[in-house]
Amino acid sequence: MRTIDWVDGAIELIDQTRLPDELVTLRIETVDGLIDAIRRLAVRGAPALGVAGALGVALAAATCDDPAEAIARLRAARPTAVNLAWGVDQAAAHLPGFDAVLARALEIRDDDIAACRSMGEYGADLLAELAPVPVRIMTVCNTGGLAAVERGTALGVVRTLHERGGLAEALALETRPLLQGARLTTWELARMGAPHRLVVDAAGPYLLARGHADAVLIGADRIAANGDTANKIGSYALALGAKRAGVPFIVVAPETTVDTATPTGAAIEIEDRGAAEVVSVKGVPLAPPGTAALNPAFDVTPHELITAIVTDRRVVRLDRGETPSSVPPGPRR
Amino acid sequence: MRTIDWVDGAIELIDQTRLPDELVTLRIETVDGLIDAIRRLAVRGAPALGVAGALGVALAAATCDDPAEAIARLRAARPTAVNLAWGVDQAAAHLPGFDAVLARALEIRDDDIAACRSMGEYGADLLAELAPVPVRIMTVCNTGGLAAVERGTALGVVRTLHERGGLAEALALETRPLLQGARLTTWELARMGAPHRLVVDAAGPYLLARGHADAVLIGADRIAANGDTANKIGSYALALGAKRAGVPFIVVAPETTVDTATPTGAAIEIEDRGAAEVVSVKGVPLAPPGTAALNPAFDVTPHELITAIVTDRRVVRLDRGETPSSVPPGPRR
Repeated sequence: MRTIDWVDGAIELIDQTRLPDELVTLRIETVDGLIDAIRRLAVRGAPALGVAGALGVALAAATCDDPAEAIARLRAARPTAVNLAWGVDQAAAHLPGFDAVLARALEIRDDDIAACRSMGEYGADLLAELAPVPVRIMTVCNTGGLAAVERGTALGVVRTLHERGGLAEALALETRPLLQGARLTTWELARMGAPHRLVVDAAGPYLLARGHADAVLIGADRIAANGDTANKIGSYALALGAKRAGVPFIVVAPETTVDTATPTGAAIEIEDRGAAEVVSVKGVPLAPPGTAALNPAFDVTPHELITAIVTDRRVVRLDRGETPSSVPPGPRR
Repeated sequence: MRTIDWVDGAIELIDQTRLPDELVTLRIETVDGLIDAIRRLAVRGAPALGVAGALGVALAAATCDDPAEAIARLRAARPTAVNLAWGVDQAAAHLPGFDAVLARALEIRDDDIAACRSMGEYGADLLAELAPVPVRIMTVCNTGGLAAVERGTALGVVRTLHERGGLAEALALETRPLLQGARLTTWELARMGAPHRLVVDAAGPYLLARGHADAVLIGADRIAANGDTANKIGSYALALGAKRAGVPFIVVAPETTVDTATPTGAAIEIEDRGAAEVVSVKGVPLAPPGTAALNPAFDVTPHELITAIVTDRRVVRLDRGETPSSVPPGPRR
């Protein structure tokens, strides 16, 4: 099953706002329909948004009198999503021909699938070296197939471990405020038939101290040249817990996430997403009306708390003094 | 305003299940009514439950043909609440005379108020020594007047700081799964007119790393002889974050919480409260039906991560090598 794909002349994607209650596939035949799906988070996750952007340009080429206008609006549908703009630009470079645009978009789709499969292999091999078999994994947010086209990053490694028969259990942190772990990761783990349990975020570091997991796997929004990693809020707390417990802490992300132009995590700005998603869940108020909130969307884990970074082209062993700058990318697996 | 009190021959208590939506005071005239209020968490918090138990014995003495039978049921209304049984036993020792029972119950009520006021003074003085003025405090769970009769423990110190004009801001962690921070602590902070913001639990350690708070104050369920402290899940993660950030981490609890019969935290058993409260919030499902959860209700923070323990009778400076066993209790403030 693919999170997003091109099927018979239109985009089909899983509506993530309906999960885990219902599995609904949307068929999107216009750029405006795609913009709406992106804005209301029916499709999310950096790799999936890159593919959505590229396929959206194909839709524009096929259906719009003025493709440039539609493409500009698509490109701006989620301003903070770098991958969306990247996917749009990659495909738009092949305009005006529809066939060439679609070919580039499908290439990006296939490349994402191959990258995720490669991360799974590199990651599972690393875990075989660092942790017992079968292994108990703790993870945060959703880094599975729903964030990509298939398989995913950190959760893609969990899938590969499970396919190899080497997964004892996955502990999914619920990931407040938006609960991607509770809603999406548990759903993916159930579909792959993997043993799993849900955990509130605050319990993660303590469960590591009590020996409930053998490794922590997380994704990444951005990886600096020295290995400092920006990821979903809560990653830093898990890294502190893993370090004290002596549990390997592993970042899994495609090579495109490594940003050698950013020297360290200190240069990464933290976005505050506002109070609304903290003071309520699914429209149910949790706090008194008007309560203010501080809501950092992600955090930065310093490189010295990270055991290794796994991409689709290499394993960077930070615990041995390697950095993304010092280890060159190699072949895909 | 008191969370629980004896008014004109009956118990009056704030129904905490209605907060923060409504402030409803229940008037309870029977032991069965009190048992019901305890079971559905209309009254919660160790000190408040102790007072509830003692006042309940007065109700039994005044209204029951067979007080012993009613008292036994009251004592067992929340089996894990040690303070409830303690309060019942303290008052029941004065049976059969109603007047003597009520006098003992009111003494327990007044003693709790005095203890909380004393913790506030000891704690605020310690913070004046350890942190800048005005100070920014981070806290977890609800340790305020709602957990006691008035003022509370950790949040009682915040109140004293605020009364002294020395509070810059309180950051309240929401405290999944039961959200005592989001529901109750914000409500208390708003009523005292103290500047505050709500934060998801996962953000606490990272906000300490970014310099958003000058001290962490938490309550305690049990304090071992060496200073290891059992408290609400999430306390340990905050302690890790505070240690790395160089921020004072202070435990505030009445002297009765110190259990010198427990040598270290390793002897403290961790209760798992089951999946229901993790997989849903206020009846709204968050995860796929049937999702399993691991739900430790509290954690144990090792003494070496704790700067000081503040009780109503002393300050124990763990950061200077003191322990609850090595420092004798002194006078109340």
